[in-house]
Amino acid sequence: MLAIGAMLQDFENNKEKAQAWFKALRDKICAAFEAEETKGQFEKTDWVRRPEGGGGTMALMRGEVFEKVGVNISTVHGEFSEAFRKQIPGAEENGGAFWASGISLVAHMRNPFVPAVHMNTRMIVTSKGWFGGGTDLNPAYPQEEDTKHFHETLQQACERYAPTAYDEYKKWCDEYFYIPHRNEARGVGGIFFDYLDSGDWSKDFAFVQDVGEAFLKAYIPLVQKNKNKPYTDEHRAHLKFRRGRYAEFNLVYDRGTQFGLKTGGNVDAILMSLPPDCAWP
Amino acid sequence: MLAIGAMLQDFENNKEKAQAWFKALRDKICAAFEAEETKGQFEKTDWVRRPEGGGGTMALMRGEVFEKVGVNISTVHGEFSEAFRKQIPGAEENGGAFWASGISLVAHMRNPFVPAVHMNTRMIVTSKGWFGGGTDLNPAYPQEEDTKHFHETLQQACERYAPTAYDEYKKWCDEYFYIPHRNEARGVGGIFFDYLDSGDWSKDFAFVQDVGEAFLKAYIPLVQKNKNKPYTDEHRAHLKFRRGRYAEFNLVYDRGTQFGLKTGGNVDAILMSLPPDCAWP
Repeated sequence: MLAIGAMLQDFENNKEKAQAWFKALRDKICAAFEAEETKGQFEKTDWVRRPEGGGGTMALMRGEVFEKVGVNISTVHGEFSEAFRKQIPGAEENGGAFWASGISLVAHMRNPFVPAVHMNTRMIVTSKGWFGGGTDLNPAYPQEEDTKHFHETLQQACERYAPTAYDEYKKWCDEYFYIPHRNEARGVGGIFFDYLDSGDWSKDFAFVQDVGEAFLKAYIPLVQKNKNKPYTDEHRAHLKFRRGRYAEFNLVYDRGTQFGLKTGGNVDAILMSLPPDCAWP
Repeated sequence: MLAIGAMLQDFENNKEKAQAWFKALRDKICAAFEAEETKGQFEKTDWVRRPEGGGGTMALMRGEVFEKVGVNISTVHGEFSEAFRKQIPGAEENGGAFWASGISLVAHMRNPFVPAVHMNTRMIVTSKGWFGGGTDLNPAYPQEEDTKHFHETLQQACERYAPTAYDEYKKWCDEYFYIPHRNEARGVGGIFFDYLDSGDWSKDFAFVQDVGEAFLKAYIPLVQKNKNKPYTDEHRAHLKFRRGRYAEFNLVYDRGTQFGLKTGGNVDAILMSLPPDCAWP
């Protein structure tokens, strides 16, 4: 009994550590983004999940450099529906009970030469526990040098975790962020991982933290490099066109969006990912 | 045998009549829209359905009054997948064989005071045969008088068919064009009907033709009345915001869009419905 009690206590500690990290990362990212912004700052809105427990905080900035960027954190718990628990590892064994905490970020940039970006990491607990997440780059005008920098920075974080992790998570990302009806990739990729549970929670958590840190190193230099580049109405029209593809992917295919919309999640938080200005010309 | 042969011949004649009507209605609508347009005309593009039979013609106009309007016709035939035929009346009994012909229209208007509109009518044949369709109005700024005119014109067509038809099809429309995750209607309604088969094909076909004619009488006066109204950047911003809702409905819920995208339909024709300029501010 003592051993089980201690294990449960460890698990509660782990949940708290993860939740605290997602919040700390949110603060760090918001500060880094505000440092690149010339006008505006993040506005935070709390929300509470009903009828079940938990909630979150949306942080939204509408600026000059960051045309629209949302950085959301949430920690929720409750019970998955009978239908849904079949799709989630360990949920049936547990009567559908779950706990989930995470951070989710989407930035749509004013300048067509600064790539849009998405980042998300999360910890999920059913009768099992795991991490998931990733980050991917969505430039209207892909620049080889930028794509290389983004990927290499993530590769370093992955290789600190496992030698094969980058290849595996890069491939997963390419497969996930693909728009079948357009026969095209949503962006230029990044990494995507799910069901991460090596048996060593501390090691997995360290990786997730590393991905969060690597995200800033991978992305902020691309903002700095491109945010003052001159652009024309035509560049901007192309940006809006590419954002249409981004919206198509999120509304038709994205698992998180579909799940959230159809199970009564916080709609404002879920759809914060949609572009501020877009076009199907 | 003679009786069955004659019935089959009737059925082939009916398919031809329906297909010819959808084409004639397309021509009539395109002419009526071009008469209201100050700049631009419809450009037609044919497409062929592979590997199975049939195809269609997209007609697209990007004008000053009609910012983006698509009027598509198609006649296709083939075999539904094992999974899909279970959802379609009469398809299992027939080895999944189907024939379908129809017209589909979406108009996004430049002036925020001219409502966007959608109209579609179709004839489907499996081992059964029926009509479906409807039309609904999507104003950024609902005007009571316009909504009343639109509904009353459709009501007259419905009442020529059956005394209860308008109430039934109006309700169906309100239920169908509802955005659950926003808890709001997509627009101000209209009519929606499906599986229409009274046993008297000629009567049902006459109703479908009547709906097509009524559409023009219901909509063209709203274009004429509102197209020259002055508007501001704020009106235009609100129009773009409402178009975001339209895109959300079509990409997340619309059965035709979902079906088309996931079964290899003509993507350009299916997504012609998406707004030329929209925003999630």
